[in-house]
Amino acid sequence: MSEPNERGPICSVTTLQVSADGAMRERREEVAVEAPFAIVLEGETLAITMRTPGHDDELCAGFLLAEGHDPRGIARARVVKRGTLSSASCGVCGRDDIDELVARLGPVEAPTCFERSVLSKVMAHLPEHQPSFARTGGLHAAALATQTGEIWCAREDVGRHNAVDKVLGRAALDGLLPLSTQLLAVSGRTSFEIVQKAVTAGLPAIVAISAPSSLAIELAERFRVLLLGFARGGGFTVYAGRFRLLGAG
Amino acid sequence: MSEPNERGPICSVTTLQVSADGAMRERREEVAVEAPFAIVLEGETLAITMRTPGHDDELCAGFLLAEGHDPRGIARARVVKRGTLSSASCGVCGRDDIDELVARLGPVEAPTCFERSVLSKVMAHLPEHQPSFARTGGLHAAALATQTGEIWCAREDVGRHNAVDKVLGRAALDGLLPLSTQLLAVSGRTSFEIVQKAVTAGLPAIVAISAPSSLAIELAERFRVLLLGFARGGGFTVYAGRFRLLGAG
Repeated sequence: MSEPNERGPICSVTTLQVSADGAMRERREEVAVEAPFAIVLEGETLAITMRTPGHDDELCAGFLLAEGHDPRGIARARVVKRGTLSSASCGVCGRDDIDELVARLGPVEAPTCFERSVLSKVMAHLPEHQPSFARTGGLHAAALATQTGEIWCAREDVGRHNAVDKVLGRAALDGLLPLSTQLLAVSGRTSFEIVQKAVTAGLPAIVAISAPSSLAIELAERFRVLLLGFARGGGFTVYAGRFRLLGAG
Repeated sequence: MSEPNERGPICSVTTLQVSADGAMRERREEVAVEAPFAIVLEGETLAITMRTPGHDDELCAGFLLAEGHDPRGIARARVVKRGTLSSASCGVCGRDDIDELVARLGPVEAPTCFERSVLSKVMAHLPEHQPSFARTGGLHAAALATQTGEIWCAREDVGRHNAVDKVLGRAALDGLLPLSTQLLAVSGRTSFEIVQKAVTAGLPAIVAISAPSSLAIELAERFRVLLLGFARGGGFTVYAGRFRLLGAG
């Protein structure tokens, strides 16, 4: 993929569009940039968040506000606080920086590949495993499926990451890791953190209904994970790891 | 609202359904339960997350896995770890418990009310303020609008909370707080944290395209915030603070 522009909210990547009839074509697509940002106040790191670059002074001010800082103080200290902001480190899991986090992960080595029809089938069946979403419209879902597309564990949660933690936790408790021949399906978008969790569990593929972030694509490429987005109506977009899609060369 | 069942993923609430023609009727609706959960290992609190109750042992195991713990260890230590889990405290903003967090907030005192047509109008115009979403499908949006429905600040971000922090941060930097006569519009669902941020900024209303969680409704009720969900196509559902909707009595 192209280098994300650290100052802008969007970057473009080369994708493989796969339609419901199996036709494939390459296309440039735009994706949302996700990048780590540290909120540092008077030398102390208050929080590290994955965010879309832009309006970082506002992000910092809004964060301080929610933390209970006086809004008049935030307005007055504007220039000073701008000076203390720094864009560095990754706070996911409390690791010091993104490279260190990534360093303890190995690429997914399993040679597992997937049939196009299997990937579509998993997404077609995911709604059957979302009974609480059907009743409330207010929960995310994550599911684990076999190489032939059978969903064997699905969980719902108000938190996207929690749903993923629950299915991977189930697999860990059952002693099934690494999940070298399985795939993770998620009901929403794919962020850096979702890919990181999947890699930790040894999963070679992630299928999502919505879009991935720039950092999710970067991490999936680096760790040899098949990453699909917009998996709906039998078609999908391949963002990373296309060597794992049979027939995609 | 009814007491959420701490063991289940869903609870039911009384809502006011407002259709595009202005017709109003009360209806019982089901919403996703959001509740704080602490992951405690050997006496140390590793993380506190807002989650949907259920499969908490899996959530804990999956979290530990992503943190780099040995999956074989997680499987072996299953019983022990179950014993160390406790459901307590709220980690949002690092506060010790949810009551303490809430204690430093005051209810939104402003007597501001809103016309139905204004609330619909804001949501009808929100997509015009989502240029990056239109290109990528991968960002959330938050916006501030006046009492007559004019959107004056809108921001997009891969993180839902970040988008809200950015618009509230803008208002704080401009010295505009409290936002006693304005409303917050969000492109997705409403969680506890979104309502907490809105209350901190003194906002009397939140309008969302999707569903709120149980805890979002509870907090909005308690702090006298008008909370709308499923605001689409001119209609919406009122979950809390209906005294702020003109004509809803």
